[in-house]
Formats: sequence, structure tokens, C-alpha cells
Amino acid sequence: MSEKLAMKKPGTPSKEGQERVDWKKWKVERKEQQRRRKEERLIKQLEKQKMKELEEKKTQAAEEGKSNGRSYTLSVALPGSVLDNAQSPELRTYLAGQIARACTVFCVDEIIVFDEHGEEAKNTEGEYKGVGKKGKACVQLARILQYLECPQYLRKAFFPKHQDLQFAGLLNPLDSPHHMRMDEEADFREGLVLDRPCKADKGSYVDCGMRKEVQIDKQLKPGLRVTVKLNKNQESGCKRYRGVVVAPHVPRTEKGLYWGYTVRLASSLSAVFTECPFKDGYDVTIGTSERGSNADDITVSPFSHMLVVFGGLAGLEASVDADNDLDISDPSSLFHLYLNTCPTQGSRTIRTEEAILISLSILRQKISTVFPNSSE
Amino acid sequence: MSEKLAMKKPGTPSKEGQERVDWKKWKVERKEQQRRRKEERLIKQLEKQKMKELEEKKTQAAEEGKSNGRSYTLSVALPGSVLDNAQSPELRTYLAGQIARACTVFCVDEIIVFDEHGEEAKNTEGEYKGVGKKGKACVQLARILQYLECPQYLRKAFFPKHQDLQFAGLLNPLDSPHHMRMDEEADFREGLVLDRPCKADKGSYVDCGMRKEVQIDKQLKPGLRVTVKLNKNQESGCKRYRGVVVAPHVPRTEKGLYWGYTVRLASSLSAVFTECPFKDGYDVTIGTSERGSNADDITVSPFSHMLVVFGGLAGLEASVDADNDLDISDPSSLFHLYLNTCPTQGSRTIRTEEAILISLSILRQKISTVFPNSSE
Ligand SMILES: C[S@@+](CC[C@H](N)C(=O)[O-])C[C@H]1O[C@@H](n2cnc3c(N)ncnc32)[C@H](O)[C@@H]1O
Ligand SMILES: C[S@@+](CC[C@H](N)C(=O)[O-])C[C@H]1O[C@@H](n2cnc3c(N)ncnc32)[C@H](O)[C@@H]1O
Repeated sequence: MSEKLAMKKPGTPSKEGQERVDWKKWKVERKEQQRRRKEERLIKQLEKQKMKELEEKKTQAAEEGKSNGRSYTLSVALPGSVLDNAQSPELRTYLAGQIARACTVFCVDEIIVFDEHGEEAKNTEGEYKGVGKKGKACVQLARILQYLECPQYLRKAFFPKHQDLQFAGLLNPLDSPHHMRMDEEADFREGLVLDRPCKADKGSYVDCGMRKEVQIDKQLKPGLRVTVKLNKNQESGCKRYRGVVVAPHVPRTEKGLYWGYTVRLASSLSAVFTECPFKDGYDVTIGTSERGSNADDITVSPFSHMLVVFGGLAGLEASVDADNDLDISDPSSLFHLYLNTCPTQGSRTIRTEEAILISLSILRQKISTVFPNSSE
Repeated sequence: MSEKLAMKKPGTPSKEGQERVDWKKWKVERKEQQRRRKEERLIKQLEKQKMKELEEKKTQAAEEGKSNGRSYTLSVALPGSVLDNAQSPELRTYLAGQIARACTVFCVDEIIVFDEHGEEAKNTEGEYKGVGKKGKACVQLARILQYLECPQYLRKAFFPKHQDLQFAGLLNPLDSPHHMRMDEEADFREGLVLDRPCKADKGSYVDCGMRKEVQIDKQLKPGLRVTVKLNKNQESGCKRYRGVVVAPHVPRTEKGLYWGYTVRLASSLSAVFTECPFKDGYDVTIGTSERGSNADDITVSPFSHMLVVFGGLAGLEASVDADNDLDISDPSSLFHLYLNTCPTQGSRTIRTEEAILISLSILRQKISTVFPNSSE
């Protein structure tokens, strides 16, 4: 498929048969060139058109005063059993870290760890067996995900020593925007409500990992994790910074900042859907499988809450089979889209932690065409 | 960013000020709708144009009798120093495996391990220090890549015990199509020329990991690794299979099969280019960086040999700086394209092993639009 075409007419060839062939080729090539030119013209027109649209959308958004916000959310669900494929407790921990990083790189807002085998595993509280090879994989995965999501300066308060976190030292940091360094200037910060009340009705003190504590307006229960919006102008020389507590989604919806993910445990695949924290549920649900339809052929429409679901070693088929609440056998009927995100894969099987990066990379690109303003 | 526009004229509003605003909005919306229609028309035209081209290309390829072949190659280059970021010898090995798998999933034909620091490291022969924390990272990475690429049944012959492979048991298999199981039927197989000559001028015997040996037409040096095309009709009951040796690219160029990657060591970034094994060099070269231009905005033109280059901990800037043969400071001038493949990254830094999956996922999709026939 040589694409460098010599476009002058072929010279007089030596043999008759040869001549016919060359002329035919020349015609084909000319036609091809014309087609290509037309295509290029069309692409240019289209790009101009798109640029115009983008510009106008930007102006519009700026007028509405929310040019930087991101309105939608992205959730990822996967079975905790993926940890059971790791060959050592160290690699088990590392794998959990890979998943946390993949989700962070693509600004995932919620990670749901579901139980492929239908055991009860609804929260991370209490005593668990931990790192045992076929132990409580869901709980361990959820715990490591939460641990990594938590800003370093708050970890000591929220994560007491635990077997599940024995090899946490091997984990690569998420390095997300809400993991601030001490002297970083920021509009928002995650903090811990301290057990030291201010004078009557003067709110609470919060440790936001800065050199001084932050005094907030509301009086909150000590030990809570809160999102603090810091006041624009801090009085210099003051003993404390000032700020107000906001909902955790505010950095995203107001400023388009990626603000980490929440972690949810689901006792089965169907609970991923039925226990959705958003009032109207997920409005785009995507299952992933090598047996899905080619992801290159689809476009994404604007949405509020997208859910992307990955399977474990045996794929989503196994999760569907194990779920007594699901009366179907074909997982594709469970989702709006059932997608193969790597149609020409050179390995017989793609591992879940790889599939997350591969799939979210493809989806990010599709999402960005419908939400062009949501880049940070 | 509501996309559902009500396009009828606004009714009589109650307040005067209100009216002006609504009319303005209506006008904006109408303009937007017109723009959208125009864009849709353009997209349709473009798609038709593309379909036409596709059709013609298909016919052409079919005429040439190689509709299933893949003509182009994909090469990936990265610095061996990425291994030095791992926190233990086990994780160092695991990281090399991640890179091998990422390249396999995306059918990479050549992996070039370059030395960021300009040391001499041109081949994997001889005695090396091995797994030392800051040891010969390039050589170890290259060795593990080669080890994983080699079909299991040939490993004992080609990979004697070596410190670099101490933790090879932790590596996930590539599971690529040329890693055959014993009884798998196949057109091609990788094999080892045995040290047992056939009768005079009757060729050689090759171990292809099957229940019987394969007798090939040519007499070759024992110990060579060869690609064997097995005869269509094997005489049943015969003591041996029959086949012929072919060039390693034949499974790809004739049948579109992914047939593993070659590994090349380069003593510097510039040697990645200058020691290219293809006669006319790489005709599309892509550098990757968070400072590159948005990959979503580019299209790929048909090519013969694509090269995608990744940086290490300090990015390609560092590799350029360390290279005495390169008189530039900005790496982007080294490549046809310098791309940011994850424009809205939610982590301050993407690790090289992650960037490979993310970037190749985006590029695969772009490549598939220009080589629609090359899917397996
Ligand atoms: C190890 S794979 C599952 C393989 C399983 N044998 C099957 O046939 O589904 C684990 C998960 O990775 C994801 N995955 C693997 N290949 C994929 C592809 N080509 N496209 C999309 N997702 C894929 C899916 O979520 C899958 O459930
Ligand atoms: C740890 S990063 C390098 C970070 C380094 N500080 C820099 O600024 O380039 C390692 C490699 O991953 C790749 N990479 C990281 N982020 C990327 C992005 N957004 N787009 C494309 N490649 C990226 C590049 O090849 C980079 O050299």
C-alpha cells in the first residue's frame, strides 16, 4: 500500500501489455488523488466548523459562569477477585495500586468493587482475614483503593495499621490534584475535623495538611473527613486560615478539578446498578468484553453519570452467571453498550488492569468530543 | 450544556426584560442548530467519501491477493532506565513484563530499549551484573522482553539460567498467537533447528513444539530459531511433519497474524533512529509527552513503519539532553508528531508502562482507520 504516488503520466513503455497496465494504474492513482483532495477539503471544512462551535460553546459557558466545571461523573466497576490472580501478597497489593492509578489517570469519580461470587461484603469495617491468597479480595481491594485516594497527610488518622495494607510501601502514589503538598496554594483542600472545638458557635478546626489549621464556619463531628474551600484572602499574620466546608463534588462541578474517587462495595453485579448513589441512576452503562461490539464504531451522547464495568479472570459472563438476581445469560443485555475496546488484540486475553487503561483511553477521547469544556 | 434544544419561537413572556433575553437565546439556538446541521451534512459527506475509499482499497487489496496481510510495522522505543523506578527486584521483573504485555496487546513488531545515559549497551550477549538496583537496566529489560517473546517450548534452548531472569516465574505470559499449544493446528510455527542432520541434502529437523518433529527443505545451522510454514496436507501416519522455512515477517505480511516482536538495544536516543532495521527508516515517528499536542486532534496517514517513543522518569527531554549526537533541546523537533495522548490526566504524572497502553490504545484506533483490512 505505497502511498507516495508519482502523479505524472507514465512514459512510453517498452511492451504493449505493460502499457495497458500502467495506464490503468495511472487512472486509479489520479482518481485516488482527487478523492484524497476532496477528503482533505472536507476535513478542513469540518474542522473549521468544529472550531467555530467550540469557540461559541466556550463563550456561552463563560457567560454562564461555569466555564471550568465538569458536570458529569464517571464510575468504574470491577470484581474484587482480580486480586486473586496475583502471584504473591506483594503483587496483590501492587495490582490494587495499578487499578487505583488507572482510575485516577482517567479522573474516575467512583470505583465499585463487586463480589463475583455473591458473598456478602458490603463494607470495609470490622476485622477481616486480609492478605490470604483467596481471602477477602473485595474488601482488601476496596481498602487499598481508599488508602491510596486519601491525601498522605490524612492517612495516619484514617488508616490504622492493617494486614491488608502490609505492603502499602510498594504502592505508587496517585499524585492527583487533591493530594496537596504542604505549601501548595489551592482553592480547595481535604481535611480532618479536629477534636478541639472553637469557642462557642465559632465552628471547628480542620487539619488540611498546611502549616496552620483551618477554621471553618460549621461545627462538625471530630474525625470527619471534609472538603474545605479556603477563603480567597487570608489575613496574613493570623494564627489560622479561614474556609468553609463544601460538598466533595464542588471542586469538580465548579472548577473542573479531579477530586479523587469514592469507593463502594457491591455484593453482586446487580447491586452495582441497584445501589447507585445517584438519584436517577447511571444514564450510560458500558460493559467491556472481547466479545463486545467494536468500540471504534460508536459515539457517546451527553450524559450525567457513566458507568463502565469490567470483568475478572472469566469475564462478565461469569459475574452474570453467579448473580441470582439476574435472570439473563448474555451480559450484553445488561448494558446500554457492550464494547470491545481493543479489536485487534495481539494477546489471547487482556488482563483487567490493562483493560481499564485501554478502555478508558478510548472512552476519554469519545467523552471529550461531547464535553469539550471539561478539560482541566 | 443541554443538547436538547426546543426550537419553536418563545411565547409572549410576562416581563419586558425577559423578552429580550429569550429572543437572543432563540437566535443563538437557531444559529447553533444551523451550524449543527451543516456539520452533520459535512460529516455524512466525509463518511461517504471514506467509505468509497475503503471499498476501493479493499477491492484493490483483494485483487492483489493479500487481503489478510498486514503490510505496516509498529515499533516502540523506551529507555531501559524505567526498570530503576521499581522498588524491588521482583517488581523490576514485573514491570518488564508489563511492558512486554502492553506491546503484545497492541501487536508491536519491534521494541527498542535505548540508553538514556549514553552508556554502551549494544547487545545482550556476555556476562552482565544483572538485577542490581541501578544495574544494567537496558540489558535486563531487553533480556526479559526476549524471554517472554520466545514460545515456552523453546525457552530452555535459548535462555539458560541467568540472574536477570531470576524472578521470571512472576511474569504474566504474553499469550500471543505464535505461542502455540502442543496440539494446536497452525499455518506457521516457531522452531529450533535440531543438531541431527537428515540424510544427505534432505534438509533439517526442527522442534516446533509439536508431538512430532518437522522436516524442512533447507539444511540450516543447528540452534537457529526459525519460522516454519507447515505444509497444508501432512501425510497421516508419517513419522514427521513437513514444512518450509520462511522469513519471520511472513505470518504478518501474508496472513495478518501477530508474530511477536524483535528486541533491539540502542546506545542512545539517536541510535533508535540511525540503526533502524528498515531500509528507508521509520516514515512516521511519534514522541509522547504531556507537553505534546493533543492527540485527539490528529489523524494518521498511511505508513510503512511507525515508531512511537516513550521517555523515562524525567521524560524525553532528559533523553535528548543526555544524547551528545543530538544538537537540539526541544524533543518535539525530533519527531513527525509530538503527542499528548491523555490530555485530561487526573494524575500529575503518568508512568511509562501506563503511557504505553494509553497511547497505543489511541493510536490503534487512528491506525485502524487507515488500514481497515489489517484486523486479524
Ligand atoms: C481476563 S479478561 C476476561 C477474559 C475472559 N476469558 C472473557 O472471555 O471475557 C478480564 C476483563 O478485561 C476486559 N477485557 C478484556 N479484553 C477486552 C477487550 N478486547 N475489550 C474490552 N474489554 C476487554 C473485560 O472487562 C474482561 O472481563
Ligand atoms: C513519568 S513520564 C515523564 C514525566 C516527565 N516529568 C515529563 O515531564 O515528561 C514518562 C513517560 O510517559 C509518557 N507520558 C506521560 N504522560 C503522557 C501524556 N499525557 N501523553 C503522552 N505520553 C505521556 C511520556 O513518554 C513520558 O516521557
